[in-house]
Amino acid sequence: MTNGKRVIVAVDESEESMFALSWCLTDFLAGNLHPYATLILLYVKPPPPAYSSIDVAGQLFSGDVLATMEKHGRDLTESVMNRAAEVHRISENNCVKVEKKVGSGVAEDVICNAVDELQADVLVMGTHDYGFLKRAILGSVSDYCAKHANCPVVVVKRPVPRHSR
Amino acid sequence: MTNGKRVIVAVDESEESMFALSWCLTDFLAGNLHPYATLILLYVKPPPPAYSSIDVAGQLFSGDVLATMEKHGRDLTESVMNRAAEVHRISENNCVKVEKKVGSGVAEDVICNAVDELQADVLVMGTHDYGFLKRAILGSVSDYCAKHANCPVVVVKRPVPRHSR
Repeated sequence: MTNGKRVIVAVDESEESMFALSWCLTDFLAGNLHPYATLILLYVKPPPPAYSSIDVAGQLFSGDVLATMEKHGRDLTESVMNRAAEVHRISENNCVKVEKKVGSGVAEDVICNAVDELQADVLVMGTHDYGFLKRAILGSVSDYCAKHANCPVVVVKRPVPRHSR
Repeated sequence: MTNGKRVIVAVDESEESMFALSWCLTDFLAGNLHPYATLILLYVKPPPPAYSSIDVAGQLFSGDVLATMEKHGRDLTESVMNRAAEVHRISENNCVKVEKKVGSGVAEDVICNAVDELQADVLVMGTHDYGFLKRAILGSVSDYCAKHANCPVVVVKRPVPRHSR
């Protein structure tokens, strides 16, 4: 049975995650293959910094600054989710049920845990084309998830025009 | 247009690559989403060793030994391709055209080049669940391809039973 697939698309501020979502809607969830699919948009907020109420000079943040930071976080979440919803709308793929989830913490851990908790059948995510050094230092969330998430993982990059291959 | 997709599945001796093929047939190429799809089974033979006609003790291999090694390579290729064809047959997915390609060399390079040369739209491959040390030393073909292949890459692992997640 291929009905009732649960597909997580990890979305963030990047163009790449929107390519991933777009690929998922047009190349995976369109047609009649997964008619009762649920598309879960998962956004992971960065973890709150350990010095959440003290700035780098050791001074307490005022309530105003903290409130602004919190508001910024909320605005960012809303902006990413709205953009994702827009990509979904444009795709005219109305066959799937859409759920939105927001997690907080280390992205790779939150995403891999979400795969288990939400019983995902597929995880779709973008990947950034960092240079060698940055990648060597930072690693990559998609690398980690491709290795550790308990389901097939689709890694989508910025599309390369055919003629430039 | 989603017609005419070209999907490469990298197959080798591993169970994981058969899971990848099976996923591709049932979760991606079934249904009517990619009706004119071409499934390309790509097997990469290991590169011929640099000491091809000299053994480790510095002695020349006899023609018989070389012929046996070559035959083993051919048998292995045939066995992998037959197994892949069997997975295809069992899936009863007869909507797709199947092509078989055999490359030789460093697997990740051959696979990434094949994506470009064959103008693949998706690459599907299995991944091995090596331990930390082996992975750190060997790296992983799927890691490399997920990063460098010029198309979306689906990384399929051995399925984890739901209850053990």
